Amino acid sequence: MNTADLGLPVDVPSTALFTDHYELTMLQAALKAGTAERRSVFEVFTRRLPNGRRYGVVAGTGRVLDAVENFRFDAGVLGFLRERRIVDDATLDWLAGYRFSGDIWGYPEGEVYFPGSPILRVEGSFAECVLLETVILSILNHDSAIAAAASRMASAAGDRPLIEMGARRTHELSAVAASRAAYVGGFASTSDLAAGFRYNIPTVGTSAHAFTLLHDCERDAFRAQVESMGRGTTLLVDTYDVTEAVRTAVEVAGPELGAVRIDSGDLLLVAHRVRQQLDELGARDTRIIVTSDLDEYAIASLAAAPVDAYGVGTQLVTGSGHPTASMVYKLVARAESADPKAPLKPVAKKSSGGKTSVGGRKWAARRLDEDGVAEAEVVGTGPVPAELADRQLLVELVKGGEIVGREPLDAARERHAATRAGLPLSAIQLSRGEPVLPTEYVHGRSGSQ
Amino acid sequence: MNTADLGLPVDVPSTALFTDHYELTMLQAALKAGTAERRSVFEVFTRRLPNGRRYGVVAGTGRVLDAVENFRFDAGVLGFLRERRIVDDATLDWLAGYRFSGDIWGYPEGEVYFPGSPILRVEGSFAECVLLETVILSILNHDSAIAAAASRMASAAGDRPLIEMGARRTHELSAVAASRAAYVGGFASTSDLAAGFRYNIPTVGTSAHAFTLLHDCERDAFRAQVESMGRGTTLLVDTYDVTEAVRTAVEVAGPELGAVRIDSGDLLLVAHRVRQQLDELGARDTRIIVTSDLDEYAIASLAAAPVDAYGVGTQLVTGSGHPTASMVYKLVARAESADPKAPLKPVAKKSSGGKTSVGGRKWAARRLDEDGVAEAEVVGTGPVPAELADRQLLVELVKGGEIVGREPLDAARERHAATRAGLPLSAIQLSRGEPVLPTEYVHGRSGSQ
Repeated sequence: MNTADLGLPVDVPSTALFTDHYELTMLQAALKAGTAERRSVFEVFTRRLPNGRRYGVVAGTGRVLDAVENFRFDAGVLGFLRERRIVDDATLDWLAGYRFSGDIWGYPEGEVYFPGSPILRVEGSFAECVLLETVILSILNHDSAIAAAASRMASAAGDRPLIEMGARRTHELSAVAASRAAYVGGFASTSDLAAGFRYNIPTVGTSAHAFTLLHDCERDAFRAQVESMGRGTTLLVDTYDVTEAVRTAVEVAGPELGAVRIDSGDLLLVAHRVRQQLDELGARDTRIIVTSDLDEYAIASLAAAPVDAYGVGTQLVTGSGHPTASMVYKLVARAESADPKAPLKPVAKKSSGGKTSVGGRKWAARRLDEDGVAEAEVVGTGPVPAELADRQLLVELVKGGEIVGREPLDAARERHAATRAGLPLSAIQLSRGEPVLPTEYVHGRSGSQ
Repeated sequence: MNTADLGLPVDVPSTALFTDHYELTMLQAALKAGTAERRSVFEVFTRRLPNGRRYGVVAGTGRVLDAVENFRFDAGVLGFLRERRIVDDATLDWLAGYRFSGDIWGYPEGEVYFPGSPILRVEGSFAECVLLETVILSILNHDSAIAAAASRMASAAGDRPLIEMGARRTHELSAVAASRAAYVGGFASTSDLAAGFRYNIPTVGTSAHAFTLLHDCERDAFRAQVESMGRGTTLLVDTYDVTEAVRTAVEVAGPELGAVRIDSGDLLLVAHRVRQQLDELGARDTRIIVTSDLDEYAIASLAAAPVDAYGVGTQLVTGSGHPTASMVYKLVARAESADPKAPLKPVAKKSSGGKTSVGGRKWAARRLDEDGVAEAEVVGTGPVPAELADRQLLVELVKGGEIVGREPLDAARERHAATRAGLPLSAIQLSRGEPVLPTEYVHGRSGSQ
């Protein structure tokens, strides 16, 4: 099936306008000044994790690659920029031929990160790199925020599957990306059909209170659902009285009933009661799915309850209190002339506002202790110490403008699970704390850029 | 210019998959049970405002109308649903002919709302209405959350313009909708070119630290920008030393310099110093734009500072602590048979979990006091009291499937400003408090549905 044929907006033909106005005016000024072609290195990093979080999760890398590939200024976009006089004709001509021709390295998707980790490194001319700032940050900041929340929820849920149900709580396309990021973070499935369509994530559904209310009585509703969907379906049992609903559900579907869903009330108490009732009715294999404003803490509090799956909505798609990842895209080195062989010089903002950055093109490696557990995020400029050479984190994603880093979404999901398992145990504590790994800086000679 | 020609994803050809899996399985079960055609009324409302907020702001209505109009199951979408066996063939046949043919009434965009306000009322067969739940909630929950934050920021900013700069902090298409919602809430412009393109919102841009760092010195950077963009440009003055940068800026551009931007440090203190310095340098008309993690509180704290405009990013696009509006879409009345003339019967969930709803198709009106200031949100079923007849809030948006409620975005923006001005003064207090209007319920006879 060709997704482009459907015209569905989750397929993105051009990403060039997901760009802040000033990227284009900076381009215009640099073109005129003769500085636009200076070789430059931009890095994406975050100065801190959200308050109390132990680690961040890189997500959206695959979407960044799509965005870079589709970043083109076609006639319609150029017409808009001309009509609104956003940039001059010389700049429009330059944009018409735009195609990113540089290199991108980055942490692979699903990897964890810490303050200062060089999550993405974009290298090319200033002109071609500066334009990508906004769309790269949009994707990484959103998707990584969701994946971090998902990862905590997945830790809390243990072996029980998590269902992403948050589409109605966020922008309709943000929801599709959130399902994707949640899958990377450890969720098993989604309610969002667009996410199933676009990313092949398994979709699942139960039933809403409206379906019960549509019918003359709960029994009619359950019968209608079972007759259509089969006994393996999930019946929603909290529209009126839960105990009565569970009894009716098993009468209608028999002990082969797939699952019941509880969406309100004291979930811990109700789950225990429903489990007991189901067992007494002989429905020992009927599963219990709980939903209702769950977050990682609520999930953890249900660890001892007889719950088989969790449906999570609002708190997942809003990053469980941290809906953005605060990553920035900073120029860290640039050539002193437009000569492609001119050496790179580290640069950094030096103002008093606490927004300083570390200049220079960076590598990163994760040092392990004797037991093979991660013990430090090492970030450096200059040569990589020999003992860290095979622990490097950055991988090649784009080479001379060609995408070389694509991978199936399951690879990112598996990488995240493995990476999280290799962190110190305190990483999966839900309580607030410091980043679970310290970031150590190793400064090389600036001449070694 | 035809936006569809650009293939830009902000133009949405089909919205049918922005739908939760269970909407389709409920449809299948209802079709089989013969209940799918029962006339039904769904309402969108919220049970509470975000903690401490005084009012909500309806935003996204125009996007909802686009979504309803484009909600079609074409061959590609149907192929996906068939291949994944999400619904049976009879349901696929029904979906192939789907076109919403019912009625939608709602609060006009920009209007304020309170707990229980029937923000949107969707009426038609159960089958055609239930499918719209997810996409309607996605749009209204996201856009209204942003507009509410924008409205508070606009109150705090008074006559000073607000620039929306949050694209990099949220999903790339969420950002476009956020710019639109911010404009409704009172923002003047956006940095997001896609929002300018799609919704004709004015776009503006300044310059980034990277531009200064690209050049051999700050003077070179300022000169490059002024030579390309003219003296009216905005120079970023906090890359190195602010005092030195302001001096250099005026030397390069002359006292005609348009504006300087300060993006870090103690903005109150720095703004005062920069204003004094600019005045001493004769640049009395040079404006000061501040950015740097502003929210409504930071904006208010700068009321006495010599600031001319605010750029707001993260806190705007994340709803200033409340990124979603917690609206729900509930069946409140339905016919007892598929007969199109069968009377409607109010319905409501009645479980113990605190998620009860008020059944019945509702009207809403805002009662004014003697001075013409709003004093209560009155929500009722049955006949509208005569004294409230001309204060009704719901307007017709879709009639028999035809969109009748489209309006220019500026109409929503102006409506919001006027509506907010008609609320009690405490509405614009930033401190936490109760909703500024109480919601009163007037219950008509249930037979009067």
